[in-house]
Amino acid sequence: MDASASTPAEGVRAPARNGDVRVVIIGAGFGGLETIKGLAKAPLTVTIVDRKNHHCFQPLLYQVATAALSPADIAWPIRKLVRDQKNAYVVMAGVTGIDRLAQRVLTDSIALPYDYLVVAAGATHSYFGRDDWESSAPGLKTLGDATDIRARILRAFEKAEITDAEATRRKLMTFVIIGGGPTGVEMAGAIAEIAKKTLLGDFRRFAPAESRIVLVEAGPRLLPAFPESLARYAERSLTRMGVEVLTAEAVVEVDAHGVTTAKQRIEAGTIIWAAGVAASPAADWLDAAHDRSGRVIVEHDLSLPGVPNIFVIGDTATVKTASGAPVPGIAPAAKQMGQFVAKTIAARVAGKQSAPRFTYRHYGDLATIGRTSAIVNLKGVRLTGFPGWLFWSVAHIYYLIGTRNRFVVAFDWLWNYITFQRGARLISP
Amino acid sequence: MDASASTPAEGVRAPARNGDVRVVIIGAGFGGLETIKGLAKAPLTVTIVDRKNHHCFQPLLYQVATAALSPADIAWPIRKLVRDQKNAYVVMAGVTGIDRLAQRVLTDSIALPYDYLVVAAGATHSYFGRDDWESSAPGLKTLGDATDIRARILRAFEKAEITDAEATRRKLMTFVIIGGGPTGVEMAGAIAEIAKKTLLGDFRRFAPAESRIVLVEAGPRLLPAFPESLARYAERSLTRMGVEVLTAEAVVEVDAHGVTTAKQRIEAGTIIWAAGVAASPAADWLDAAHDRSGRVIVEHDLSLPGVPNIFVIGDTATVKTASGAPVPGIAPAAKQMGQFVAKTIAARVAGKQSAPRFTYRHYGDLATIGRTSAIVNLKGVRLTGFPGWLFWSVAHIYYLIGTRNRFVVAFDWLWNYITFQRGARLISP
Repeated sequence: MDASASTPAEGVRAPARNGDVRVVIIGAGFGGLETIKGLAKAPLTVTIVDRKNHHCFQPLLYQVATAALSPADIAWPIRKLVRDQKNAYVVMAGVTGIDRLAQRVLTDSIALPYDYLVVAAGATHSYFGRDDWESSAPGLKTLGDATDIRARILRAFEKAEITDAEATRRKLMTFVIIGGGPTGVEMAGAIAEIAKKTLLGDFRRFAPAESRIVLVEAGPRLLPAFPESLARYAERSLTRMGVEVLTAEAVVEVDAHGVTTAKQRIEAGTIIWAAGVAASPAADWLDAAHDRSGRVIVEHDLSLPGVPNIFVIGDTATVKTASGAPVPGIAPAAKQMGQFVAKTIAARVAGKQSAPRFTYRHYGDLATIGRTSAIVNLKGVRLTGFPGWLFWSVAHIYYLIGTRNRFVVAFDWLWNYITFQRGARLISP
Repeated sequence: MDASASTPAEGVRAPARNGDVRVVIIGAGFGGLETIKGLAKAPLTVTIVDRKNHHCFQPLLYQVATAALSPADIAWPIRKLVRDQKNAYVVMAGVTGIDRLAQRVLTDSIALPYDYLVVAAGATHSYFGRDDWESSAPGLKTLGDATDIRARILRAFEKAEITDAEATRRKLMTFVIIGGGPTGVEMAGAIAEIAKKTLLGDFRRFAPAESRIVLVEAGPRLLPAFPESLARYAERSLTRMGVEVLTAEAVVEVDAHGVTTAKQRIEAGTIIWAAGVAASPAADWLDAAHDRSGRVIVEHDLSLPGVPNIFVIGDTATVKTASGAPVPGIAPAAKQMGQFVAKTIAARVAGKQSAPRFTYRHYGDLATIGRTSAIVNLKGVRLTGFPGWLFWSVAHIYYLIGTRNRFVVAFDWLWNYITFQRGARLISP
């Protein structure tokens, strides 16, 4: 984009009020939203820019991918979330770069000048250098990914119904999920439920319950972020639900017809990638140092080394706790970073001292395993099974943003729980 | 497709039970579904084939296109609808032709042999020979159309927020709906509501309420199927909501930047086609006589002239009432035809006499105009305004198929009614 095209916008984005400080936030995920909300009362202009028009509650994406919820149930227009915040502007545009010299964010439409910049651009899938695997094994980061995976799963069953070749049907009825973290565990459990409960009686020429669902993890056990006892519980639960759990088994090849691990070949009609996460291209935009996953290395106050007016937060940054452990890539961590950075910017604009160091508080870890079971690890409290699921449900409904969405999601879950049905079994859109 | 590829499927689709009669139904719309349900107790095998995996409640499509409902709220997996009907088979495949000589339906995967064939393939948009208009002015027949139109409407507002050229913004804020039938009236009313109520306060640099919404109809008045007094009421209501209603004004050109009528040029960022309807390619498949809109000409019993075992129903056929007026292309008409054909086939298979003539009973016409107003024309009863809207809401919720969907739709309407919000404001997916 040439500079002249962006000049008029600059005039508008930076209102003429004297002394007005311009903050630009890239990304309306958990981190970006907390930042803009934290700046609501500060005397500055905050512009949040996102490729999408909506914030997506990513922890429930797997429920959209498995037809339990509709996309709109877990998404909110960004504008609606900040409509009452007078100093907030929302721009729907794709970021293409950052001009650090001129202090502006470049997008596919206008340029956004900033005095402070907060990069909260999230993460995407990483195929460990094998990007050619993506078309066969899509990952789950956006609502588009979720409806795509939903269509793949449902279409596999439709194709299995009309094929006459037994080998083809076996392949179509095989689902491989790569990666044994929370997303992989949740997807495997939900697909098992679809095959063994939801679709019961829907097909005439094969039994969906005979589907093979394989969860492959390269590490020695599932859910490395959880204590071993809970991970073992999850593994036992999945096995009881009919999921084959393969641990210590690295995937060496993925293609349109299946997965090859170090030990075997699995022909599969549907493959889902839940293994690797890579940061957004923010390190490139900023020309900044980063770790192997592309996450930007930041100072203790989350600013870019040597650039005190640029902050990088959430999955886009690599941050250590006081004990030296990495801060996990989960929603509460991104929110805490957003709150911290908002306070820092507000303090600096007010000429006050800001806190020199971000401190992460870990409240716990949650993961569901199917319809009525979950594992919960809070400080000193471990829940499994139905009590875990109840806690998980209440926590997730509590954190869902809109009142309407809380009702609809709660209703859909209750419905699913009573009937085993899934309300959103649509192959596109 | 070559014949050998379809042979194995033939064996399976037509079970070996002696004397088993095979019925194939093309299309799982209102007509097709009524046909298959009407054959539930008949001693035959019924296969319903559809390109989609779901039945869509088309009368509410405009609510998906205007972000009030989610796609899954008005759609049901076809399999789920007939799961308990033992003689029913569902095939998700695109029909490519009909081999009348060999008596089988050809699809993009398998071939389906039939003894009786019911063609209920619906309709699509007609651009009166100007198919090049479609990319600029999409129509509304499928859930994919609805989410596409939803994205276009919402994206126009997003673009209006970041442009600095006043002419561009005026254009982006102009919405033209072509066609003054129920769909056009409903879309115009809903877009006016979005612009003037839902988005209030969401934008900083322009007022969505200043949007221009233009409804263009070539005929002398809106809603030709309704009595003139109700049509005038609808026109007055729309005008009060800020819609410009242009009647007796034919569209002569449509392009990416706007619409040219016989009287003026209107620059517009969003154009929606609600004018012409054409039948599916069924007449081609059957090599049958058809009217100007491609609808197949049928006998009084809805069979193809000279081919008593092929029936054509719903929007795919052109049928006259006893008085010689055309049967309208609405859901109740398609359902009545489906019920009639099911009875005809069941009678013939049982060796009984079937009714020689389909008789259409017209119960009435309904159309909504915005949030709390509708017009209703039943035999002798005319309702407008809020009583009309109440009747319309109850009727539509009653006819929604699943219990879950009734709850969710009722809840979303109530929510929309109370808050003016729309829960599904997503730009893709």
